Amino acid sequence: MNKDIPVISLQRLPVYLNYLKGLPEGETYVSSGGIAAALGMGEVLVRKDLAYTSAAGKPRVGYVKSELIAALEDYLNCNGRRSAVLVGAGALGRAVLSYGGFNNYGIEIVAAFDSDPEKTGTEIAGKRIYSMDEAEREIKRLKAELAVVCVPAQFAQEVADKLVECGIKAILNFAPVMIRTDDKVVVRHIDVAANLAILSIMLEG
Amino acid sequence: MNKDIPVISLQRLPVYLNYLKGLPEGETYVSSGGIAAALGMGEVLVRKDLAYTSAAGKPRVGYVKSELIAALEDYLNCNGRRSAVLVGAGALGRAVLSYGGFNNYGIEIVAAFDSDPEKTGTEIAGKRIYSMDEAEREIKRLKAELAVVCVPAQFAQEVADKLVECGIKAILNFAPVMIRTDDKVVVRHIDVAANLAILSIMLEG
Repeated sequence: MNKDIPVISLQRLPVYLNYLKGLPEGETYVSSGGIAAALGMGEVLVRKDLAYTSAAGKPRVGYVKSELIAALEDYLNCNGRRSAVLVGAGALGRAVLSYGGFNNYGIEIVAAFDSDPEKTGTEIAGKRIYSMDEAEREIKRLKAELAVVCVPAQFAQEVADKLVECGIKAILNFAPVMIRTDDKVVVRHIDVAANLAILSIMLEG
Repeated sequence: MNKDIPVISLQRLPVYLNYLKGLPEGETYVSSGGIAAALGMGEVLVRKDLAYTSAAGKPRVGYVKSELIAALEDYLNCNGRRSAVLVGAGALGRAVLSYGGFNNYGIEIVAAFDSDPEKTGTEIAGKRIYSMDEAEREIKRLKAELAVVCVPAQFAQEVADKLVECGIKAILNFAPVMIRTDDKVVVRHIDVAANLAILSIMLEG
């Protein structure tokens, strides 16, 4: 297994995994050509991406499907156990807290923080909402290194700075604004509106 | 203006726009070098991306900030008026319906569809929820070409097929599964859990 993977390849591994998990139970083998055709990608690219995992394809037959799934799950640490926290228990934050998909990747959102005193002390989807003042204590206690930021744009940078101070090493940012951190912290940005705008422009192009 | 833009460049235009809108009012000029440094990118890349818009930078002074913002907004059709529909009024669908960010890009979610009879006929964030049987009629009436899919994974393909039948040309898919459509329909996939998993692997790498 090679962890020195380009982000662009890493991003495709969950796509392969989802595709393979959706195949009928009865299929034992899958080929890089079959995956490529189904996902509308090039076969060489698929083979290169999969070579980062421990999966070994065999000439002519391809990969044993269950082995390839296991290799991808292993690479993506799906059977691990990592804790994440969330900041901003508004409409989007509530949806993310209620979302069951994280445990497919061995990730659990263990706590949330919000500055609204009416929300602190309550629970959403079984997750306790704490005040921002409690963030440092809880993040350290829960040993969380991942955080999801669902606050309005104007608070995102301040919240990110605070999270980094508390020991967070990776931030998934839903706020429609760029977050700047030092180079040791990794940030991914999901801008829902921009994604829809991009689609719309692709349609015109 | 050149609409023949690679998706990878197109994806960065909203990032520049957000950055520029966040700058202090008083700043009149911005340089590609300044943008590049602030966003941690290469200057040549920034200049190339911005060259797809109608913005014209001047040697030494750079771009007039307000002109560059207007050029990006123009390129991204932010002052246009496009209608989108949403399918799946669960926790995530509700959050997307309540999300105000779309109008920054000239997009309005005008209706939603759900198969749950308890939801149909109600409104979320002022948007009417219709049954799936009403999809074709409403999509045609509203002249919507964009759709946001927020249904569970096992229904996503079926819902996408139905939407394409009804005239939808672009789908933003939140279901954790690949949607396949014919080549004329554009699809973007936001897999929230996979994004958090990718961050986590980047942290280890």
